[in-house]
Amino acid sequence: MNLLENLNWRHAVKAYKANKKVSQENIDKIVEAARLAPSSSGLQPFQLVVIENQEIKEKLALTALNPDCMRNCSHVIIFAAWDRYTAERIDKVYDHTTEVRGLPKGRFESYTDQLKASYLKQPAEENFAHTARQSYIALGLALAQAAELRIDSTPVEGFDNAVTDEILGLQSHGLKSVSLMYVGYADTANDWIAPMKKVRTPKKEFLIEFK
Amino acid sequence: MNLLENLNWRHAVKAYKANKKVSQENIDKIVEAARLAPSSSGLQPFQLVVIENQEIKEKLALTALNPDCMRNCSHVIIFAAWDRYTAERIDKVYDHTTEVRGLPKGRFESYTDQLKASYLKQPAEENFAHTARQSYIALGLALAQAAELRIDSTPVEGFDNAVTDEILGLQSHGLKSVSLMYVGYADTANDWIAPMKKVRTPKKEFLIEFK
Repeated sequence: MNLLENLNWRHAVKAYKANKKVSQENIDKIVEAARLAPSSSGLQPFQLVVIENQEIKEKLALTALNPDCMRNCSHVIIFAAWDRYTAERIDKVYDHTTEVRGLPKGRFESYTDQLKASYLKQPAEENFAHTARQSYIALGLALAQAAELRIDSTPVEGFDNAVTDEILGLQSHGLKSVSLMYVGYADTANDWIAPMKKVRTPKKEFLIEFK
Repeated sequence: MNLLENLNWRHAVKAYKANKKVSQENIDKIVEAARLAPSSSGLQPFQLVVIENQEIKEKLALTALNPDCMRNCSHVIIFAAWDRYTAERIDKVYDHTTEVRGLPKGRFESYTDQLKASYLKQPAEENFAHTARQSYIALGLALAQAAELRIDSTPVEGFDNAVTDEILGLQSHGLKSVSLMYVGYADTANDWIAPMKKVRTPKKEFLIEFK
């Protein structure tokens, strides 16, 4: 199946079967799609938090707009972005890059100097606005990967970010939650949106062309 | 080829062959992947601007970090987000939804009232921070679609948004440019990044697990 078929197949599931687990192999593929996502200057300024632990899901459910999905889905994947850029984080990425590519350390120094000059003078909130955006590229690709595997999912912004960060201890990683994704198998009888037609902005209103 | 293979195949191309055009059929598929992207509350608060016109590409090139890519690529796709949410925009989306699904107009009124209560009190900049994020989901899927078709592309934030908006007249559509994507065929001899290994954060540093 190709991407367009997969995107037409998926929808934001509103009810999950409890106790039906997604295999580790398939979770790994979803994480890998997010890990391969491109990002600004290749900095990948976000991480994924994968939660299978039921106790933690129950705690998170108290902060979620759709607590039953949180409880019943197989895995919750949190997209958490860097709270700010730092010289250490930028250097770590580019030290890894030169190592993997067999280039001399510091080969990209003039570029990383530019990045530092641009990001480090910004307030943390401005950095985070940028890191958070990047994480949505990965969210889109993770949803597409789940769809390719015919695994149900739901992209979610409706949860309490601060409480979630606290429960997961994200501050100690220098991370703040941005969005999350439920992964599992739909409880079709209770997934009220399942029989409804997918609706998108018509192409003629979505597209502006300069031929 | 599956999504992971496609994501491993792609990279952010740094030089394009001039005069090698992507077919309209394939441009349509890339636009369609972006159009099918999920978004917060299904509002799809962004549009795509597809530019094939050489004169406009030359103008935009003056504002771009990599002007030769802008000039030589086949098409430039701009991701432009709503400058703010309005009651009219929200109603238009949900009027279309009820129409397509054969539901009574106003069926989602309590939901759209909630959306309006939440968004309309925010300053325009806060709205735009949210609409811009959504457009990155579409950017990711458009890049994945190009890769599936073995068409080269480059995701780009390095351009002058205000000048671009002016050249394209986006303000009159209530839109502001967020990111863009070059689409075309790589000039392999000059695409210095092509022979280099893809680098991503190692999985053990990318992933936090609660089993």
